[in-house]
Amino acid sequence: MTEAAAAESPATGSLPARALAERYRAVRAATERLRAPLSPEDCAVQSMPDASPTKWHLAHTTWFFETFVLERKGGERPFDPSYRFLFNSYYNAVGPQHLRAERGLLSRPGLEEVLRYRAAVDERMLAWLEGAEADGSSLLSAVELGLHHEQQHQELILTDVKHALGGSPLRPVYRELPEAPGGAAPPLRFERFEEGVRWIGHGGRGFAFDNEGPRHRALVPAFELASRCATNEEYLAFVEDGGYERPELWLSDGFAWQRAEGVRAPLYWERDGGAWRTFTLGGMRPLRPEEPVTHVSYYEAAAFAEWAGARLPSEEEWEVAAAPAPVEGNFVESDRLHPAPAPAGPGLAQLFGDVWEWTRSDYAPYPGYRPAPGALGEYNGKFMCNQRVLRGGSCATPASHVRASYRNFFPPPARWQYSGIRLARDVA
Amino acid sequence: MTEAAAAESPATGSLPARALAERYRAVRAATERLRAPLSPEDCAVQSMPDASPTKWHLAHTTWFFETFVLERKGGERPFDPSYRFLFNSYYNAVGPQHLRAERGLLSRPGLEEVLRYRAAVDERMLAWLEGAEADGSSLLSAVELGLHHEQQHQELILTDVKHALGGSPLRPVYRELPEAPGGAAPPLRFERFEEGVRWIGHGGRGFAFDNEGPRHRALVPAFELASRCATNEEYLAFVEDGGYERPELWLSDGFAWQRAEGVRAPLYWERDGGAWRTFTLGGMRPLRPEEPVTHVSYYEAAAFAEWAGARLPSEEEWEVAAAPAPVEGNFVESDRLHPAPAPAGPGLAQLFGDVWEWTRSDYAPYPGYRPAPGALGEYNGKFMCNQRVLRGGSCATPASHVRASYRNFFPPPARWQYSGIRLARDVA
Amino acid sequence: MTEAAAAESPATGSLPARALAERYRAVRAATERLRAPLSPEDCAVQSMPDASPTKWHLAHTTWFFETFVLERKGGERPFDPSYRFLFNSYYNAVGPQHLRAERGLLSRPGLEEVLRYRAAVDERMLAWLEGAEADGSSLLSAVELGLHHEQQHQELILTDVKHALGGSPLRPVYRELPEAPGGAAPPLRFERFEEGVRWIGHGGRGFAFDNEGPRHRALVPAFELASRCATNEEYLAFVEDGGYERPELWLSDGFAWQRAEGVRAPLYWERDGGAWRTFTLGGMRPLRPEEPVTHVSYYEAAAFAEWAGARLPSEEEWEVAAAPAPVEGNFVESDRLHPAPAPAGPGLAQLFGDVWEWTRSDYAPYPGYRPAPGALGEYNGKFMCNQRVLRGGSCATPASHVRASYRNFFPPPARWQYSGIRLARDVA
Amino acid sequence: MTEAAAAESPATGSLPARALAERYRAVRAATERLRAPLSPEDCAVQSMPDASPTKWHLAHTTWFFETFVLERKGGERPFDPSYRFLFNSYYNAVGPQHLRAERGLLSRPGLEEVLRYRAAVDERMLAWLEGAEADGSSLLSAVELGLHHEQQHQELILTDVKHALGGSPLRPVYRELPEAPGGAAPPLRFERFEEGVRWIGHGGRGFAFDNEGPRHRALVPAFELASRCATNEEYLAFVEDGGYERPELWLSDGFAWQRAEGVRAPLYWERDGGAWRTFTLGGMRPLRPEEPVTHVSYYEAAAFAEWAGARLPSEEEWEVAAAPAPVEGNFVESDRLHPAPAPAGPGLAQLFGDVWEWTRSDYAPYPGYRPAPGALGEYNGKFMCNQRVLRGGSCATPASHVRASYRNFFPPPARWQYSGIRLARDVA
Repeated sequence: MTEAAAAESPATGSLPARALAERYRAVRAATERLRAPLSPEDCAVQSMPDASPTKWHLAHTTWFFETFVLERKGGERPFDPSYRFLFNSYYNAVGPQHLRAERGLLSRPGLEEVLRYRAAVDERMLAWLEGAEADGSSLLSAVELGLHHEQQHQELILTDVKHALGGSPLRPVYRELPEAPGGAAPPLRFERFEEGVRWIGHGGRGFAFDNEGPRHRALVPAFELASRCATNEEYLAFVEDGGYERPELWLSDGFAWQRAEGVRAPLYWERDGGAWRTFTLGGMRPLRPEEPVTHVSYYEAAAFAEWAGARLPSEEEWEVAAAPAPVEGNFVESDRLHPAPAPAGPGLAQLFGDVWEWTRSDYAPYPGYRPAPGALGEYNGKFMCNQRVLRGGSCATPASHVRASYRNFFPPPARWQYSGIRLARDVA
Repeated sequence: MTEAAAAESPATGSLPARALAERYRAVRAATERLRAPLSPEDCAVQSMPDASPTKWHLAHTTWFFETFVLERKGGERPFDPSYRFLFNSYYNAVGPQHLRAERGLLSRPGLEEVLRYRAAVDERMLAWLEGAEADGSSLLSAVELGLHHEQQHQELILTDVKHALGGSPLRPVYRELPEAPGGAAPPLRFERFEEGVRWIGHGGRGFAFDNEGPRHRALVPAFELASRCATNEEYLAFVEDGGYERPELWLSDGFAWQRAEGVRAPLYWERDGGAWRTFTLGGMRPLRPEEPVTHVSYYEAAAFAEWAGARLPSEEEWEVAAAPAPVEGNFVESDRLHPAPAPAGPGLAQLFGDVWEWTRSDYAPYPGYRPAPGALGEYNGKFMCNQRVLRGGSCATPASHVRASYRNFFPPPARWQYSGIRLARDVA
Repeated sequence: MTEAAAAESPATGSLPARALAERYRAVRAATERLRAPLSPEDCAVQSMPDASPTKWHLAHTTWFFETFVLERKGGERPFDPSYRFLFNSYYNAVGPQHLRAERGLLSRPGLEEVLRYRAAVDERMLAWLEGAEADGSSLLSAVELGLHHEQQHQELILTDVKHALGGSPLRPVYRELPEAPGGAAPPLRFERFEEGVRWIGHGGRGFAFDNEGPRHRALVPAFELASRCATNEEYLAFVEDGGYERPELWLSDGFAWQRAEGVRAPLYWERDGGAWRTFTLGGMRPLRPEEPVTHVSYYEAAAFAEWAGARLPSEEEWEVAAAPAPVEGNFVESDRLHPAPAPAGPGLAQLFGDVWEWTRSDYAPYPGYRPAPGALGEYNGKFMCNQRVLRGGSCATPASHVRASYRNFFPPPARWQYSGIRLARDVA
Repeated sequence: MTEAAAAESPATGSLPARALAERYRAVRAATERLRAPLSPEDCAVQSMPDASPTKWHLAHTTWFFETFVLERKGGERPFDPSYRFLFNSYYNAVGPQHLRAERGLLSRPGLEEVLRYRAAVDERMLAWLEGAEADGSSLLSAVELGLHHEQQHQELILTDVKHALGGSPLRPVYRELPEAPGGAAPPLRFERFEEGVRWIGHGGRGFAFDNEGPRHRALVPAFELASRCATNEEYLAFVEDGGYERPELWLSDGFAWQRAEGVRAPLYWERDGGAWRTFTLGGMRPLRPEEPVTHVSYYEAAAFAEWAGARLPSEEEWEVAAAPAPVEGNFVESDRLHPAPAPAGPGLAQLFGDVWEWTRSDYAPYPGYRPAPGALGEYNGKFMCNQRVLRGGSCATPASHVRASYRNFFPPPARWQYSGIRLARDVA
């Protein structure tokens, strides 16, 4: 998701104000913990138009609450009127926006001022949420949405910082990471799912983004799904088999893309004599064969699948397989900040956490989808073009943020997210 | 389709050699009739990388027969060995290719030489097809494919020449066109289709491209489909309502695209004081309100639909509606070379001919699709990314070339094809 | 000179009308002889924005006479009113111009029509020049200017066609060329010139462009000038000594340019196993070590000079050395269309013809220079920025077109002209 | 000067070590005073490839001393070995360099670390300079060069920060500036200089960059020079006379440049209803008619001169006029950080300080110029292409840094320096 494009599912009831206040404290604090290892300069840098400075994420998530809750509630003066412009991402209904590609050129407001902005908005938000007047307010759903929105930006803080640090010749460390668990990956199996008319999309209680609905039926043909994500070892075999040199494995756009960009391996891989190393948020380290491959584009994922005699799953297939599974895995709370090898055992491993899994599905509206009216609902549909759906969350995703119906989306060449590969196959 | 990417449906039997010979003569002659109004220079110009010179189309379609029939049959020396490189479009299995964007820089071979090439290949092809040895040959399916391939290029000759002439400040005439029929367009109605599990894809006898199969079932929710294509009058109302200035109507990519390109109306529209004129293959003429709007991108089609309180159909919806209809309409054989107003009457008008109809569907493989092995089958799947499906053929399509299951595809910004709009709606 | 930007020297008397008529016939016929080996398609192609189609050169030189003579004389209707726009190069005072980079997209008017245009203007021009009314007309100086202008375009026809054919994978032949003369180049000597205040610029009788004046004095320090142009053998030694890999030899802009463009040898050189071949207007042939190196940019010329422990001459130095020499050499009339080895003997060889010689001089106005008023004089000065002066003419220059004071100019990266290198040195 | 490209004049004796130590303290402290108003984020931002972050300037000037003095002296370990790469600007003989355009992406080392780097190098430098061993060292000339180099970067800190702040929608203040002096500019006069053979270039004692020599004679024709710089009022008359819309006033490259970039006024001018405002280091303020126009490109300066019936001076003309004048004016020490109106009185005002004055002279080597051997001398000559000379220093230049022979240089489109206009005229 280029950034949080979200609106509350109309079918979903919000939490009570008190519960939201507690959640608000927790989510906002989590954001600031991610910021803690970073200097003011680290927080200001923008390494490409797709990535934003940490400082901008800190301010934009705050702007969201100020604009969609405090301003609508009334009785508050804006912290700084220029922020309405500076920290609006793409909400045309709110007004014009600072150029996305120039977020890194804003040295002011500085980090300290942005932290003051956060504190001021937090104070107002909590005073209201913990006061008498909030209960039952129609604005509570915007608060809940804002918290999910902020969780999306928590993940982006990590991926954007990784991109900035990984582009520095110093390859500096974000934070020392725990030793990676050792051991081999379990053998790859394919699990079979029979044809059927299935329910797809969010249908239960609890929060969901509007693009997860309406819940609807779809005829899903029989298919097989890999028992775990593809590993570095498997991907390396593709590389060493000349995978990047064989046009017959690639989508036409994908081959043109890797030629033009000089891509010959996943992002952050570096050849070091005969061995490969990779950049992590803990700095450079040897590539571990048993870990899931990550930071691959859709094009690379599709070429690898072709080479492997398989294909990528559709998002419906993925959801059919994941719906019964518990939402457990290697999320940001594990503090590893890197995908981990799959555990041995029966069933499908790594559906949640570790790496976002590219699907072959175009990011398109579900049957009957209509964006909600107004600024908040205005903008999920507008990204439904030239993007592919990813499912399942990653090692940088908060555990409480993801679910089986969650649809992440990025354009085919995107590689700076923790994106990985799960294979699928037709059933003859 | 950027150009013919096709392979024979394995389920389809070919015509007998004699019948193919007759068809071969007819198709090849039709191509040369389209060329007749053009000078050597007209045939050499390439106005953008997406469009090719007529001369290249004449040679590439010939190369197809030489490479996939004569060369495989054996016993023939190539007409000119350099043509294997010069006139290969994108078949990596055949070998490297001349740069697509530089096709217009090849002044040699000239038109005369290319016509000699055509004649020499025709002579060899017909000698074989009309001889004893062809009957039952496994190469006959490649002949049939080559004829459908050539029909695709017939359409491209017209659209590419229109783009070249339309870009000249002289706005020169390709050929004098007959007077357009007058009269108003019939009122727009929506026809309802009920939910059901439907068969999609080519299933009967006769030729089809591999991307039209496998035939498969899909659950298609209830929908409504417009009784005719959107007209210039309707599109002009969108323009005059500020449609191009209202970001809320547009896909995010689409709005960025029209800002960057300065697009404010369909391709070939020109404002002339208070009125609009449009470029046709017969030169400039006043815009006729009752004609179907054409030369719009997917982005424009989607924004118009949003403005109209509707949406574009999915390709499955379109096919469900079109499957029972006869393949009749304003095709290239009508010699109008321009879309015509819809006739009055019941049912759905203009499903075939006039304009290709943008669908909201990503150009994706059908369930179970696998490209055929080898060069011929290698290359339909590789275009299945970042393109949208169009259905139904246009005023530049040969009548015998299209069918209800036919899937054309272009990237969202493409406008130089005869692309138009049919609206659809959800059923509440 | 990107194209003819010229105005008559006010000090110069024109020829009588009858003499001009004769000269007119000769120059116009020479242009058409250069065209003769080319097909309509060859005449239409534009291989880069800097180069123009032959057809455009044929029409533009005709437009010059129509606009600056026939139109001013009065009593004539334009051949085609659209040509005023289509074939204007850069004369803003005449009106707007068709985009330079899109000259190759104009398939119409075709070659035949352009030849009719030439014939029609020739008929009118000659009727006037050979009639009674022309003698003494103030328009005669524009006729003379137009003939020199056309000679400039004769050279451009050859260099532009060479670029177009040289870019084709077929490397086709413009015309069979005579066998190149054999033999070694004479040894390189440096000839010394003493310091002095020298007269620079055109001063005698006869035609000159306005940028060759005013004639003025300049203090020219003592210098040494090479006895002939640098040869392929000498340049190859630079290449093989790693010349293109050593930043210390290059201007900073030049090194960046050759990295970005992937330049590792002069234009048209191709390595063929261990040997080098080069493209000529007679097709590919082995690189001859004794011929002058040509098709080098200013950047390459300057780097070579640095490597050779020398420098490029200033334009004043060149003119001081060339002023006493006869204007003789390998010009277009020799029909070789390629530079030839220097003859042995005393003095400075190859000052005129063979290759244009890059000087280190910025193309700047001489002291007291003011462009003439009006369209014709408007436009020499406007190119006096970011260009370097070249001197002496080439194997593609008409002999009657060049002189010691003649200033050609191109931007530093230009390579498609017959540009070469003569070294100079400071005197300690 | 894109950045300091300098080498010691071989004819110049250095100061004694003790005197240099004192000067070292002063220059290094001056740099840090310029930094003081800036936050860590302000110091990290790079608003375009031509501008560098303050932090980079702080480090690069330190790297200069570490590389060219401490490292050569021996016995010192580098502060951080990676800095050799990170803070090398363009010295290929020292080794490869971090990409210029990506200086703003380096969040580490942070400002604090860079200040530690400065302190560590200062300690070592001063220990050596104030010790016994430095006196008479051949490295003292590199120290002196390094101090002039650092002064160049002091000016760049100001111009680069102005560009970064001026590009922010907040238009933030670098430092509160004193009230500008009021009053009208004195009337423009032209002062006449007679023709003569003049001495040009640095010849006296004291430091000079190598590009200021060798001192040599040149024949300078008679000319007239304006008594002061062109004012905002005069430039505004050009703007309001349609100056930017009239191609006949512009160099061809210049007109293309302003069309492509959308330039319609000097950098930092903003129209505010009927009035103009301009961005200064003290923030936005009304445009003062009596101040010298600044932040104009060479193209704008030349077009203005053409409009005014004049031209820009050559660098020799400027030097002839300035050589007798005292080096006094509105320099950085005045703390105005903005050009001030010319004082009334006889003679030529504003030759030094206020604004750098564009000359029409190509930045070219003087006769006999040879760069010194080795890294330090390697690199002035390599910038001698596609740049124009500016003379006289600006309100951001240290007073002790400039002199009559000083040659600054920038490419014609550069506008972010304090560049202005002094007119000249031919003498009929």
